[in-house]
Amino acid sequence: MSSLPAGDKRAVVLLSGGIDSATVLWLAKSRGYVLFAMTFDYGQRHRMEIESAAKIAKSAEVQEHLVFSLGMHLIGGSVLTGTGEVPKDRLDGVGGGEIPVTYVPARNTVFLSIALSWAEVLGAGYVFIGAHAVDYSGYPDCRPEYIQAFQSMADLATRRGVEGDPIKIEAPLIDMNKSEIIKLGAVLGADFSITTSCYDPDDSGKACGRCDSCLIRKRAFGHSGIEDPTVYLEQ
Amino acid sequence: MSSLPAGDKRAVVLLSGGIDSATVLWLAKSRGYVLFAMTFDYGQRHRMEIESAAKIAKSAEVQEHLVFSLGMHLIGGSVLTGTGEVPKDRLDGVGGGEIPVTYVPARNTVFLSIALSWAEVLGAGYVFIGAHAVDYSGYPDCRPEYIQAFQSMADLATRRGVEGDPIKIEAPLIDMNKSEIIKLGAVLGADFSITTSCYDPDDSGKACGRCDSCLIRKRAFGHSGIEDPTVYLEQ
Repeated sequence: MSSLPAGDKRAVVLLSGGIDSATVLWLAKSRGYVLFAMTFDYGQRHRMEIESAAKIAKSAEVQEHLVFSLGMHLIGGSVLTGTGEVPKDRLDGVGGGEIPVTYVPARNTVFLSIALSWAEVLGAGYVFIGAHAVDYSGYPDCRPEYIQAFQSMADLATRRGVEGDPIKIEAPLIDMNKSEIIKLGAVLGADFSITTSCYDPDDSGKACGRCDSCLIRKRAFGHSGIEDPTVYLEQ
Repeated sequence: MSSLPAGDKRAVVLLSGGIDSATVLWLAKSRGYVLFAMTFDYGQRHRMEIESAAKIAKSAEVQEHLVFSLGMHLIGGSVLTGTGEVPKDRLDGVGGGEIPVTYVPARNTVFLSIALSWAEVLGAGYVFIGAHAVDYSGYPDCRPEYIQAFQSMADLATRRGVEGDPIKIEAPLIDMNKSEIIKLGAVLGADFSITTSCYDPDDSGKACGRCDSCLIRKRAFGHSGIEDPTVYLEQ
């Protein structure tokens, strides 16, 4: 256990139910923080995510897991919250710098803002997010310069910031690729069998195996040398 | 009517139901924007705000008025979303630089983030907010430097930002005091009789006349020379 100053022992961790946020949660746990996990119910089509997040939170023995409802589907703008077609079988196009149709406008900004609010109320000194730029170069809000700009804004936005002890935004995976993240998570003890990546699972929650997220997951497990515990509808 | 470039004719306006946001809405209207008003139902104790916002939106003939639900009461941290006592009769303490108990942690950050997301979906070039530093010097997220930092972050957070045409955050009242805002709103045609300021109205929606917000409102109407249309429980 690390010896953190009182009041900085708490961390809010954004937990989506996927591999990245599960790894970040276990990383924060390894650093000795008291964990407050936050999952957004934002009208995403794949409800499995929220169930996975609850299982991951339980497995990491968090102090509290808050599922926060947010009507992002009222706003629309992404196939993940709307009715459009989730793209399939296009691994070559993933991570190519173009902004994909699965991009939810300003999603990380909205999530980080609400996490910042909760952190301030809790007296938590940290907000952890599993954003990383390597496999998601197309998402503007997964870039290191974006995280830095959010930090600068947060320093001015909060009571703690005004008092000279701002809440820190931690994106420890920002420069890692997915297979490095899988290796890290495995070492830390994360159970990937309870995580969900698929953008378009079937009614029983089984992963499609063909959307961008499934393709990235399969490839990353392949590169990591760690066995993929996921059951895919199509291999 | 101004001649705006196509795609920049739309503006999202944060509309709380109070004097400031009503004035901003009418200011955006005067500049010829197609208006998309956004009100947050964030578990605030004074539900009157939302009814007032709907009336103001209608009076300004907005294209759409979106009431967005947000469980900020799950997070707590303010007497405005919780059960604590709303302070009364302390006009001398208002605006004195201290952060008041009515501060909702990171509220403007959360609201601006969601408005940014909606603006991106709508193809709107502007987000208007009625924040001003003069009467609310105690709120960190009402300062000009905060708005600038939010803009810098937003430039990096969005598709439009990446494409070099970022959504602009407009806080046109930032350096005005409340009586100047009232004068501006009156000139633009805002109907203040349908606005709500009180932090603690009675069940019929009548303003208490004694909370910080009522005291600021009364004083500002007094200084403006414009008659206050509000019926207060206590004068």
